[in-house]
Amino acid sequence: MTPSYQCPGFKAAGIACHIKKSGALDLGLICSTTTAAAAGVFTRNQVQAAPVLLCKDHLSGGTAQAVIVNSGNANCFTGAQGRKDTYATADETASALQLNNREVLVASTGVIGAPLPMDRIRSAIPDLTAAMHADGFSDFARAIMTTDTVPKLVQKQGVIDGNTFTLLAIAKGAGMIRPDMATMLCFICTDADLDGVLLQQALGDTVNQTLNRITIDGDTSTNDTVLALANGVSGVEVRTAPQLEIFKTLLTEILQEICRMLIKDGEGVTKVVEINVQGASSNRQALQIADTVAHSPLVKTAFFGQDANWGRIIAAVGRAGVPIDPDRIDLYFDHVKLVSQGSYCGADAEAQAASILQQSEFAVTIDLNAGSGCNTILTSDLSVEYVQINADYRT
Amino acid sequence: MTPSYQCPGFKAAGIACHIKKSGALDLGLICSTTTAAAAGVFTRNQVQAAPVLLCKDHLSGGTAQAVIVNSGNANCFTGAQGRKDTYATADETASALQLNNREVLVASTGVIGAPLPMDRIRSAIPDLTAAMHADGFSDFARAIMTTDTVPKLVQKQGVIDGNTFTLLAIAKGAGMIRPDMATMLCFICTDADLDGVLLQQALGDTVNQTLNRITIDGDTSTNDTVLALANGVSGVEVRTAPQLEIFKTLLTEILQEICRMLIKDGEGVTKVVEINVQGASSNRQALQIADTVAHSPLVKTAFFGQDANWGRIIAAVGRAGVPIDPDRIDLYFDHVKLVSQGSYCGADAEAQAASILQQSEFAVTIDLNAGSGCNTILTSDLSVEYVQINADYRT
Repeated sequence: MTPSYQCPGFKAAGIACHIKKSGALDLGLICSTTTAAAAGVFTRNQVQAAPVLLCKDHLSGGTAQAVIVNSGNANCFTGAQGRKDTYATADETASALQLNNREVLVASTGVIGAPLPMDRIRSAIPDLTAAMHADGFSDFARAIMTTDTVPKLVQKQGVIDGNTFTLLAIAKGAGMIRPDMATMLCFICTDADLDGVLLQQALGDTVNQTLNRITIDGDTSTNDTVLALANGVSGVEVRTAPQLEIFKTLLTEILQEICRMLIKDGEGVTKVVEINVQGASSNRQALQIADTVAHSPLVKTAFFGQDANWGRIIAAVGRAGVPIDPDRIDLYFDHVKLVSQGSYCGADAEAQAASILQQSEFAVTIDLNAGSGCNTILTSDLSVEYVQINADYRT
Repeated sequence: MTPSYQCPGFKAAGIACHIKKSGALDLGLICSTTTAAAAGVFTRNQVQAAPVLLCKDHLSGGTAQAVIVNSGNANCFTGAQGRKDTYATADETASALQLNNREVLVASTGVIGAPLPMDRIRSAIPDLTAAMHADGFSDFARAIMTTDTVPKLVQKQGVIDGNTFTLLAIAKGAGMIRPDMATMLCFICTDADLDGVLLQQALGDTVNQTLNRITIDGDTSTNDTVLALANGVSGVEVRTAPQLEIFKTLLTEILQEICRMLIKDGEGVTKVVEINVQGASSNRQALQIADTVAHSPLVKTAFFGQDANWGRIIAAVGRAGVPIDPDRIDLYFDHVKLVSQGSYCGADAEAQAASILQQSEFAVTIDLNAGSGCNTILTSDLSVEYVQINADYRT
């Protein structure tokens, strides 16, 4: 049985309005029964889609009540018409829900540069609002998918001062995944009671440690959006630092699960690989090295080939732009040490590493033995299927 | 008929000494009849193979007479033994050729981290020196190949003050190709007469505009080496600024041809694509944008899929870290304008662009309309075969 995903005081829906040629679900809606505190984190790409601009505008008040999302068309690089279309989408949705139009947020994902088929969206909005129900999140999750193969939902409950609150996250990913960005689309609902400022702070901090630490292909979307709505219907107040800490811990756990789901379902991904760098002079330098290794096509194709090709990893470390002493590097695949103080540990270690590479998930740990700086990036292999998917995406 | 490649006063050879499992040629030698002015440009990777360290050491005098090169093993990350092996290779070669050992340079390419099979190299050196002849450059070119599918040689003659001189370049590439590096292995012989300082200056300047402006996968090797030998046997003196300019122009033309050969024969490459960025605030910013577009997996897979997916190109421009105004961008595939002042030019233009994408070579031009800065990077598509080659490289 499919688990039921719900968050008190929220309804959701997902329908097909034929933006996608396939006829799959492509229009989704989340709506809170009351005005909710709202926060967002967005792409840092200088080319930003019209819906990103709308969300930034509408979030200035720190509240929102509904989010409408279409897949199949990113409404990006669509000029003045694109901005008009995204505002019209919010207006029509607000009107159908009897809300102020600034209480509606919009997100779009899909092909860049094509005009949004507004006639189809406009005529679908009444059906969409009619379809909303408390169990509608699974449909919503499917409606925001592009090349994702599975819907991505994570739900958890936390306790603050003896009272229970719920957090529910729904995401889509698949390609154009890179750190230093909010990455894909992710929507978070909670019935906890906190204001927009605190929600923005909690979201920013947790996204930075989770969604900004994953990569599939290093490309960054023009539409990356993470939105959070907190409607407070549980009555669980998040005000004090300890209360905020509990909330952030639960949000971090949820986003970590989302991250793993996103990488696992990345385009053509067969391996989920944690790149740990430790012993660096600073956390920042560790991140720079982890990032270089995590993006190397030669390292990623070796993962796909199940080849413990540590030479390519060391070569990537060496070009990361961080001072290193190659003769002090230790390198591990999971617990197997393959390079010790800059020297290859031999065929026995390599045979053990080779069997680790056959797993669908494993970790590569690079210890520079030069300090206490450390950082982790979650990456994937680069497969034949990744190329096939992306060569054929628009056809 | 295969063209004959020669450079007066130089001999070369290529033989099989079974470093490669396949039994293909894997040991090459170039030797000048007299001491030559010598110069080199090397990888900026902090992990540098033993032969790179030897070349830097031996080039300190500005002269050399011979270069020995093996393929199949990079002699990198091989520690003290690797350094000992590379110096022993130079010593044995010097002894067989009756030269001072500091007149011998060494280069290696292939798998990282495996010890060099010195017994095989040592016992092959007498055969190698015996095989040298004026027409031996084609064998040499084949002996330095790894995943290259064709040998790469370019020869041209120039005239200075009414007298003819020759330039001959031999290169290997295929993977781990990225700008900001000397990239692959490349050996340049000339019978022009110039000193080591001038040769180093000419080499540095021309490499920066040619071999440092190409990319296949963005990975940089630990062994990248460009060496030039000038033996002066033509008697054509390169001393004055105008003479140097003629020499550099010819060297640039040769290296541009080498660049195109390297990309065309890149691992799994089906498209050679020139990324031109113009109208930038500075040449440096133009290069940063060209570099980001040229490395984007999503752009490169779209090239492979023959998809004029300009949205991915614009998205890469937007994340290059350079301030841009998306509403002023023009984008062309060859002569076809697909985006004008930030707006899509429509289906007719796209149909024309689609037919350009079917060519094996084409140019993408991005005009930011914000200044006079420009730069070009030569890149390739990212194909299914690239992934297959690199997943299976060590097996």
